[in-house]
Amino acid sequence: MRPISFQIEKEFPGTLARAGILKTPHGDIQTPAFISVATKATIKGVSSEQFSDLGVQGIIANTYHLYLVPGEKIVEKAGGVGKFMHFDGPVMTDSGGFQVFSLGAGFGKKLSKFLPEQESAEDAVSIWSEEVASQHGKLAIVDEEGVSFTSHLDGSLHRFTPERSIEIQHALGADIIYAFDECTAPTADHAYQKEAMDRTHEWAKRSLAAHRRNIEKNNSQGIYGIVQGGRFEDLRIKSAREIASMDFDGFGIGGSFSKFDILGILDKVNRELPKEKPRHLLGIGEPEDIFIGVEAGIDTFDCVLPTRNGRTGGIYTEQGKIQLPNAEYKEDLQPLDPQCTCHVCKNFSRAYISHLFRAKEMLGPILASEHNIYFLANLTKRIRNSLLEGTFLQFRDTFLHSYKV
Amino acid sequence: MRPISFQIEKEFPGTLARAGILKTPHGDIQTPAFISVATKATIKGVSSEQFSDLGVQGIIANTYHLYLVPGEKIVEKAGGVGKFMHFDGPVMTDSGGFQVFSLGAGFGKKLSKFLPEQESAEDAVSIWSEEVASQHGKLAIVDEEGVSFTSHLDGSLHRFTPERSIEIQHALGADIIYAFDECTAPTADHAYQKEAMDRTHEWAKRSLAAHRRNIEKNNSQGIYGIVQGGRFEDLRIKSAREIASMDFDGFGIGGSFSKFDILGILDKVNRELPKEKPRHLLGIGEPEDIFIGVEAGIDTFDCVLPTRNGRTGGIYTEQGKIQLPNAEYKEDLQPLDPQCTCHVCKNFSRAYISHLFRAKEMLGPILASEHNIYFLANLTKRIRNSLLEGTFLQFRDTFLHSYKV
Repeated sequence: MRPISFQIEKEFPGTLARAGILKTPHGDIQTPAFISVATKATIKGVSSEQFSDLGVQGIIANTYHLYLVPGEKIVEKAGGVGKFMHFDGPVMTDSGGFQVFSLGAGFGKKLSKFLPEQESAEDAVSIWSEEVASQHGKLAIVDEEGVSFTSHLDGSLHRFTPERSIEIQHALGADIIYAFDECTAPTADHAYQKEAMDRTHEWAKRSLAAHRRNIEKNNSQGIYGIVQGGRFEDLRIKSAREIASMDFDGFGIGGSFSKFDILGILDKVNRELPKEKPRHLLGIGEPEDIFIGVEAGIDTFDCVLPTRNGRTGGIYTEQGKIQLPNAEYKEDLQPLDPQCTCHVCKNFSRAYISHLFRAKEMLGPILASEHNIYFLANLTKRIRNSLLEGTFLQFRDTFLHSYKV
Repeated sequence: MRPISFQIEKEFPGTLARAGILKTPHGDIQTPAFISVATKATIKGVSSEQFSDLGVQGIIANTYHLYLVPGEKIVEKAGGVGKFMHFDGPVMTDSGGFQVFSLGAGFGKKLSKFLPEQESAEDAVSIWSEEVASQHGKLAIVDEEGVSFTSHLDGSLHRFTPERSIEIQHALGADIIYAFDECTAPTADHAYQKEAMDRTHEWAKRSLAAHRRNIEKNNSQGIYGIVQGGRFEDLRIKSAREIASMDFDGFGIGGSFSKFDILGILDKVNRELPKEKPRHLLGIGEPEDIFIGVEAGIDTFDCVLPTRNGRTGGIYTEQGKIQLPNAEYKEDLQPLDPQCTCHVCKNFSRAYISHLFRAKEMLGPILASEHNIYFLANLTKRIRNSLLEGTFLQFRDTFLHSYKV
């Protein structure tokens, strides 16, 4: 019996959309679902005591960040990410691939993807002192075995391999962990993207093997493979086929630095994946994207935007996103979203919360983030209901008609 | 029937300490009580939905800050400070005197307390363009009628008189408002302190008269006079006598920039005040101060330190204040205070919350502030119980024996 299983409740004819139940050791996720981002074992500004009221069914934390601070040993000692942050629902951890490349390397700065030919990976690491790193900027050096990278916090040198990422994720103890992948720069050409993809497939096999070797964790944590291929349709389809052939518990569609690279070919990717296993779209989840994703067969989403927007006063409403600090809301005694039933909209006004932003008070970002999290969680719940009732396309059209992007 | 009344339940023999009930239009405060600081209509980082669980019996907001942002008209339109921030319990507003002088003037910078003799107050204001203010730094110019000052936010010019402060406080709609007072610099000599005190007494009469003229507000808001006199015992006693002779609903002991100016003479001040009316100690309220204050006859306290300490990881415990970000708590799976029963201590560990501080996550300051607020609220509750049970001095000695300052 695998720790992760997925049950399709209803499919929507003519699309890949489905409503389902994703079963994990820490409870079920009713899909489609929005998985809230808790990178450093916290949804930014929101206590886990609020999750249930906000409709948070699951969270996704990050291996790179928790490895650096506070270190996976402390999280393990506390009983895993969930216990550490006092959340007893399902937890995912992303493998750190994306962060190693985006934060460790610093896209657009100095990016060295290849080792000088005369050097082995070990040599490269040993000569790569902090002094060198500080002279040459942040770096991520890929070799066939793994990635050496500098911490975005202090420039210190670290190394991840698929085996190490899995080991850290075993310590972090999430219900669903991810294979370690190589995330390419958005500018990578087809040739390099293919090379990185092939490496990601090798790493997927090694991640899976490392996971299966740990009998104890194998029974309490599931593992998802990650489809790569950047912005190239042929590579995405090839990657989906390869990853689909491995014995993962589910799949993540990853590695996109622009959602427009992937949304248009998502249905083609998902058609290659086994229908009976769950699919997660990594890092994409604005309301308009969720409809596209669900129609293309995605079951779960995660996205930093509800809290990132919330921190600067960007608020999701049925009519679209509004910028709360704008002057027009200064004396507006309506709730953030007059049609919303979350605790923020029940108890506070636009005038009050926009005052908090003007007064630079923390409670502004807190309340805005809480509303936004509820909004996305509730939107996926409504989509799920529309799938169960057979009214998905109708609901989509009605919602998107009034929702101004 | 006055909107504010006070009932003494029990006095502690040999001291001025008493347990009582302060009745307001928005409910009773069981005293001694800690009034939480909500300067800009928010306890920093804490939603009003949490107040009840944290033991918050009442809050104190600030006239100067709310006048500047968002403006008292918006708060009035929202139904007053309490409704604006969704808190239905008792609210106080400080008159803005302290802030006009400390923020508007910027102590230690250029402080001009006297008008040039050749100029009237009106002249002074009219020649005091923003250009002049920007050349000469922030200023607060006192005259017999009131104070002209620059905003600490944008340097714009404003003027408060006792009548204007009361008018703003009527709009803000708190249950208890304060007379407008002059706060002197901590370096003020006896002669200037006396002059300022005499002016404060005149302003107290005018504040009271302005309040009584507004029949409607007179029935829904009570007003406290403020005892001044700086660090001089003779002036403090004189001030207490003068303010005591006016028909206020209660009294604030104010104007202290160092708590050591006032704690030692608090009992002498309070002996001059009518025993049957409530007394509030403005801006002082660390655990050790609260015991001194209660023994000297103070009923309510407010202090920014629970949240200010909380934001930097300073945590109140039965054993004294700890600095949570210190290395020793990194792997400590105990609650913030093992003897505390607040929701933070029930659900989270020192290891987790110190991780949040290291990771620069908002939730760290939020949880630390919530615990600290509960700690102070609960401490005053325990003091109250010890007064009712006749064990006050015993409780004080036991508490202070283990509490390291």
